[in-house]
Amino acid sequence: MRVYEIMDGVKKYRFGSPISTDAIVLEGYEIDNEKPRYLTIENNKDLKLKYKMAVKDQVFGLGENQKGINKRGGVFEAYCSDDAVHTPDKKSLYGAHNFLIIHGAQKFGVFIDYPGRVKFDIGFTHRDELEIIIDDKNLDLYIIDGDSLREIVNKFLKIIGKSYVPPKWAFGFQQCRWSYVDAEEVEGVADSFIKYDIPCDSIYLDIDYMEDFKDFTVSKERFPDFKNFVKGIKNKGFRLIPIIDAGVKIEEDYDIYEEGIENEYFCVGKDGSPFVAAVWPGKVHFPDFLNKDARKWFGYKYKVLTDCGIEGFWNDMNEPAIFYTERGISEAIGFVEKSKNKNLNIYSFFQLTDCFEGLSNNDKDYKSFYHNMNGKLVNHDRIHNLYGYNMTRAAAEGFKEIDSNKRFLIFSRASYVGMHRYGGIWTGDNHSWWEHILLNMKMMPSLNMCGFLYSGADTGGFSGDANAQLVIRWTQFSLFTPLFRNHSAMGTRKQEPYAFDIESVDILRETIRLRYALLPYIYSEYMKAVREQDVYFAPLLFEYEDKYSKHVENQLLVGGSLMIAPIYEENALARHVWLPEEMLLWKVVSYDERVLEVMDRGHHFIDIDINEIPLFIRKNKMIILGNHANNVEKLETLEMNIVAFVDNRATYTYYDDDGMTYDFKQGAYSEIIIDIEKIDEDYKINIHNNGNKHVKKMNFDIVDMSGNITKKSVKI
Amino acid sequence: MRVYEIMDGVKKYRFGSPISTDAIVLEGYEIDNEKPRYLTIENNKDLKLKYKMAVKDQVFGLGENQKGINKRGGVFEAYCSDDAVHTPDKKSLYGAHNFLIIHGAQKFGVFIDYPGRVKFDIGFTHRDELEIIIDDKNLDLYIIDGDSLREIVNKFLKIIGKSYVPPKWAFGFQQCRWSYVDAEEVEGVADSFIKYDIPCDSIYLDIDYMEDFKDFTVSKERFPDFKNFVKGIKNKGFRLIPIIDAGVKIEEDYDIYEEGIENEYFCVGKDGSPFVAAVWPGKVHFPDFLNKDARKWFGYKYKVLTDCGIEGFWNDMNEPAIFYTERGISEAIGFVEKSKNKNLNIYSFFQLTDCFEGLSNNDKDYKSFYHNMNGKLVNHDRIHNLYGYNMTRAAAEGFKEIDSNKRFLIFSRASYVGMHRYGGIWTGDNHSWWEHILLNMKMMPSLNMCGFLYSGADTGGFSGDANAQLVIRWTQFSLFTPLFRNHSAMGTRKQEPYAFDIESVDILRETIRLRYALLPYIYSEYMKAVREQDVYFAPLLFEYEDKYSKHVENQLLVGGSLMIAPIYEENALARHVWLPEEMLLWKVVSYDERVLEVMDRGHHFIDIDINEIPLFIRKNKMIILGNHANNVEKLETLEMNIVAFVDNRATYTYYDDDGMTYDFKQGAYSEIIIDIEKIDEDYKINIHNNGNKHVKKMNFDIVDMSGNITKKSVKI
Repeated sequence: MRVYEIMDGVKKYRFGSPISTDAIVLEGYEIDNEKPRYLTIENNKDLKLKYKMAVKDQVFGLGENQKGINKRGGVFEAYCSDDAVHTPDKKSLYGAHNFLIIHGAQKFGVFIDYPGRVKFDIGFTHRDELEIIIDDKNLDLYIIDGDSLREIVNKFLKIIGKSYVPPKWAFGFQQCRWSYVDAEEVEGVADSFIKYDIPCDSIYLDIDYMEDFKDFTVSKERFPDFKNFVKGIKNKGFRLIPIIDAGVKIEEDYDIYEEGIENEYFCVGKDGSPFVAAVWPGKVHFPDFLNKDARKWFGYKYKVLTDCGIEGFWNDMNEPAIFYTERGISEAIGFVEKSKNKNLNIYSFFQLTDCFEGLSNNDKDYKSFYHNMNGKLVNHDRIHNLYGYNMTRAAAEGFKEIDSNKRFLIFSRASYVGMHRYGGIWTGDNHSWWEHILLNMKMMPSLNMCGFLYSGADTGGFSGDANAQLVIRWTQFSLFTPLFRNHSAMGTRKQEPYAFDIESVDILRETIRLRYALLPYIYSEYMKAVREQDVYFAPLLFEYEDKYSKHVENQLLVGGSLMIAPIYEENALARHVWLPEEMLLWKVVSYDERVLEVMDRGHHFIDIDINEIPLFIRKNKMIILGNHANNVEKLETLEMNIVAFVDNRATYTYYDDDGMTYDFKQGAYSEIIIDIEKIDEDYKINIHNNGNKHVKKMNFDIVDMSGNITKKSVKI
Repeated sequence: MRVYEIMDGVKKYRFGSPISTDAIVLEGYEIDNEKPRYLTIENNKDLKLKYKMAVKDQVFGLGENQKGINKRGGVFEAYCSDDAVHTPDKKSLYGAHNFLIIHGAQKFGVFIDYPGRVKFDIGFTHRDELEIIIDDKNLDLYIIDGDSLREIVNKFLKIIGKSYVPPKWAFGFQQCRWSYVDAEEVEGVADSFIKYDIPCDSIYLDIDYMEDFKDFTVSKERFPDFKNFVKGIKNKGFRLIPIIDAGVKIEEDYDIYEEGIENEYFCVGKDGSPFVAAVWPGKVHFPDFLNKDARKWFGYKYKVLTDCGIEGFWNDMNEPAIFYTERGISEAIGFVEKSKNKNLNIYSFFQLTDCFEGLSNNDKDYKSFYHNMNGKLVNHDRIHNLYGYNMTRAAAEGFKEIDSNKRFLIFSRASYVGMHRYGGIWTGDNHSWWEHILLNMKMMPSLNMCGFLYSGADTGGFSGDANAQLVIRWTQFSLFTPLFRNHSAMGTRKQEPYAFDIESVDILRETIRLRYALLPYIYSEYMKAVREQDVYFAPLLFEYEDKYSKHVENQLLVGGSLMIAPIYEENALARHVWLPEEMLLWKVVSYDERVLEVMDRGHHFIDIDINEIPLFIRKNKMIILGNHANNVEKLETLEMNIVAFVDNRATYTYYDDDGMTYDFKQGAYSEIIIDIEKIDEDYKINIHNNGNKHVKKMNFDIVDMSGNITKKSVKI
C-alpha cells in the first residue's frame, strides 16, 4: 500500500494498481506508509472495510440513492443501473457516488475510488456496523478528516474539482415528454406555453426525433427542415434539447456505425469482435468511451446537431442499459423449447418467466465485453461505473472542440464522481408517486455532497399518471433545483403545466414565475457553490447542530439564505417545520406580493395552501429577486428586490455573468455586495458594485426581529 | 329501478337484476321510485355515477387500498388482485370494499354492491369530480345519509351485519414465515420463543407443510406424526395455523380432486369441462365457492385438520391467483417460436417479454371460466370479487358443522364486504419498506369502516429484507392491530423477534409484552366494536372535527380511550403529533413502569426513542391493563391496572368472555363498569361488576389535568 497526503486532512491509500478514474483532481505527495485511520481492513476473498458505529452516528453521502439523507440502516451497491422502478429497496440507481461521511462520535469522510461494484452495509445487517465490500483489490481509498459535516464535504469537493457550469438559460423551466414526436407536436407545446403565458426555456426531444433511434440523425419525415425548425422554435423563445443514447445502431452505411467499425471504437467481446447488445435501435454496438480516441470521435459528432443550432443535450441509456443480448435471448428461447412439451411444474414456470425478466441489464452481459484503455483490454464489469461518465466527458470535450468558450447544456443519466466536472445529471426514470417528491428532496443534498450541483428530478414523475395536485406540489419543490424539468413517459397522462384545470394552470404559472423571479438568487448561489467548491442544497445539519436539525429529512437549505419545507403528501394543507433559529416566513402566492412573518425558533405546524410556497429567510440573511419573463434571456435586472431578515447585520453577494461563456473563469463576472446594518431604529445599506452594468436600482424590504418592515430603495 | 328503505337514512336503488352478494343483511321495504340523492347517473355504455366535490370535501373508505385515509386524488379499481408489489400507483389490492364516504359540504355514504369490476376516480382526472364506473347495469346502489363520518359508518356497519369474532388466543402474537418447512423447524421456532422468553400464541404453516401443495394433506415426510406434533406444540404453548389455498391439484386418487370432479364442484370453462389454471401445485381446478353444495363440501374438509387438533387457518390465493393457464403459456410459446428466427426489433422484444409478464392473473383467463349459481352459469369476471369471500364463508360454515359453538381463527387474503361476518383478512404480500408501515396505519381505519375488524399486516414486511429497526418500529404499531403477526417470504432475511441483536430482542420482547398486558383493553374494545357495530380503529375525525384532526393521516384512535402516533420513518427519534385536546402521554418502555405526562391541546414534537411506544390516553378516559404471560391462555386477570386521565368523570366498560365459544351471543359474558368521578381533590370510584368472576383487585393511577397522580386500589 502506498499512502499520499492529498491536502490538509485528506489522505489517499492505494491498494494494488487501480484503474485511473479521474475522479480526483489533486495528486498530493507520497508519505510514509501508515494504516488508514478509523477503518478496519479485512483482506480476504473481498476487500472489506469496517467501522464500528456509535449509537448516535449518522452516515451521509452516497449521492443518487434510495432512503434518507442519513443513510444509516440501508444497504447500497454502487453499480449504475437502468432500473425504472425506484422502490425503497433498490440498492442501485443510475449513478455511483462512493463518498460517505460518518458524523457522530468520530467525524470523517470515506471515498472509495473504484469503478466496479462496491457494497455498503450501513448498519443494515448489524445495527452498529458499517461495512464496505469492494469487488477488487485495486483501488484508492480516501479518508477525509474534519470537524463538521460541512468541513468534510468541502474538503471532498476540493479534491474532486469544480462543478460543471451550464448556460444560464438552463436554469429556466424545461419541458420534456417521451416523446414530442414531430415538428408539429413540438410547435404545439411551444404555442401552449405562449398561449398560457407560462415561462419556459426549452423543449426536449426524446428518442423519437431520430431516424430509427440512430444517434446524430434527425428523422426527415418528422422534422423535414430541422435547422430551420430549431431556429423557428428559438425565435419563439425556446431551445430544443435532443437526447443522445449510448448504443450505436448496427446498420450498413450509417456513418457513425461505419466509422466506429473502421476505427475499432466499439467495445469488443471476448473474441475481439464488436460486442452486440439490443437497445432502442435494436442491435447496437457500444462506443468505447474509455478509449480516448473513441471519446474524441464520438464527442465531435455532437457537431451534427450543434450545426443545426442545438445548444444542449441529455445523454441517456449510458449505464449502459441493455434490453437483451443474443446470449440472453437464445438461452431464454432454449429454455422455452426444452420445457414446451413437458408438464411445467411451478418452479420450472418461475424459471421460465425469470429467463425473460432477467434479459435486461444482466450481469453476465456486463461481464462479457471489454474496453481498450490505452491499449489494454479491460473487462467492462471492472469499470462499469465509468461508462456514462465518459460518454458525458466525450460530449463535454467535443463541445470544447466545437466552440471552445460556449457553455452547452449537458447532463447524463449514469454517472460517477468526476463526471460532475463535465455535466449534470437527472435522477432518471422516477414515478408519479408522492413518495418520489420526498425522495427527490432527500437526494438533492446527497448529490451535492458528491459534487453534482446541476441536477433535478423528472418533475411530476416519469412513469405512471400524475394528477394536478402532485404536479403542483412537485413543481413547488423543483423550482429550487438547478435542473427544473417536467418530464413524463409515453402512455402516461399528459402533465405539462397547462395540461390541467384552469386553477391548477394558474398555480403552476405562478410557481414557475417564482422560479424566474428568484433566478438572480438561484444563479448567484449556484455559481458561488461552483466557485467556492461548496454545496447549493444542504441538510440543516450543515448550519445547525442542534438535536432536531441533525435529524430533519424534509427541509433543506438552498444556498446561503433560504430554507425550504415543501409539502410532499397528498391532500396535506399544513406541515410540521423545525426552525433552528428565528426565520422570516414568506408564503409565496405570487412573488410580487409579500406577506412576511417572523417565526420563532422551535417546532411549528404551518398551514400551506395548495397555491402557497413557503420560503424561510434565515436570520441576518437576504434573498434577491427580479421579475419573471417568459424565458431567461428576457429577464431584465434593471430593478432588483431584496427581502432581508436583519437582527443586526446581513451581507449578500449577488453574482452575475454573461451566462453564455466561460469568461467568468477569467474574471469576467460581476458582484454586487449588499450590506445591511441595523443602526438604532434604522438600517445602513452599503452597496458595493464590482462590475455589474445592468442593475440600476434596488428595492429593500427589511424585516427586523419584531416583524417591522422597513422599505427602502437605493440607486446603483 | 326499484327503491328500498333499508333503515332510517339508508336507501337501496336496484338497477336491473343484480347477482346476490349477501353483503347486506337488512332487506328493508320497497318505497316509491325516486332518484338517488347526490349522484348524477349516466347510463350509457357503462353505468357512471358522478358527484361534484367541493374544494374541501374529503373521501373516506374503500378498505384495502393504497393512498391515504382520505382517498381524494386517487384512482381505484375494485377487482381482487394478487399483486405482490404494492407501489403507490396500484389501483387494486386483494380486497374489494366498495364503500366510500363523502365528507364535506354534503355528507353521505355510497356502497356499490356489485361483485365485478368497479372504478373509482376520486378527483384524479378532474380535481372536483368523483366518478364511479360500473362494468355492468345490474347492481344495488346504497346511499347512506348522516351528519358525521362516524354516523354514516355506523349505519353502514349496521346494514352489513356483525363482524366475525376470533378466539381470544388469536389476539396474541403470531409468528409466520414462508415456510417453516418441517416439524423440526417449527419446533425450533417454538423453542426460540421459549428461550428468548417472548410471548407468542401461534406458529404458522405456509404452503410447504402440504404434500405437493394439496389442500387438506400434510406431508408425511416432513410431519410424520402430525396429530401428535400439533399436540406437542400446543403443550409448549403454541397453536399451529395451516394455510389453505384456493386451487385443488389435479391428481388422480387425490380425494379432494376426485370428489370435486365427481360432484361437479369445480368451476368450468366454456365447454363445460373443469377449468384448468396453474398455481402452487401446478395444474389445478378451482372449487366453485359460488355453488352452495361445493361450498358445503369444501368447508367440511377443514375437518381433516381440525381432527388433528388444528384450531385456526388462513385462506390464501383466493382472488383467485392464477400463475398461468394453458392458453397464456401456449400463446407466449407461440410468440417465441414465431419470433425465433426473425431479427427481433425492439417492439417485438417488448411484446415478447410482455407475453411472459402478463401470464399471471390475466383478464382473459378470468373471463374464461364459469360458476354454477343455483343452476345458472355465471361468468367469473362478473362475480370475481365474491370468490375469496365465499371460500372463507365455506370455511366458516364448515366450522359450524364441525364444532358449532367453537370459535376458529380464520382469515383470508381476498375479500368483499360481507365476508367480514365469516372471517378476518390480512393485507397480503407487502414489503419490508418503511412506507408500508404508514400504509398499514392508513389501511386499518379504512378497513374498519368497511366492516373488517380482525385484520393486520405482515409485520416487518413480507417481501424483501428487514433490518432490526424496521421490525421494531413496525411491531410498535402492529401491537395495536387485532391480527398481530410477523411474516416474511422465502429467501428474505429472517425477521422473527429473536432474529436480531440482543438489544433489539429486548425491545421487541417488551413491545410484545405490552400487547399482552394491554389485551384486556384490546379485547374489550374489539368486542364492543363487534357488538355495537362500531369501529376499533378510527381516524381522529371520528371524534374531533377541528381543522387539523380532519387531515391527520398518521395518528389513529384505538378503541374509545387511546390515540396512537407511531414512528414510521427510518432513524426518526421524534415526531409531530397533533393533540385535539389535552391527553395523557405514557411513553411505554416497559408496561409496568408508568411515566405519565399531561400534554396540552396543540401541536407537539415528541421525542420517541427506539424503545419507546407513546400511548395517548384521551381526556376523561381510561385504559385497563393486566400483566403479560407467554400466551393468552396463561394471562390472568386477578389484579388489573387502570390508567385514567380524569378532568371530571371517566367511565369504562371492561368486557370479557370465555374467549373460546359463541356463548357471549347468549349473554355469557361479563362487564365491569368502572366509573371514576372527581370530587374536590379526590376521586370517587364506582365499580359495577356484571358477572366477572376473575378480577379481584383493581389498581388505579388517576391523573388530573395538572398531572397530579393519585394511586388507589379497589377490591372487587
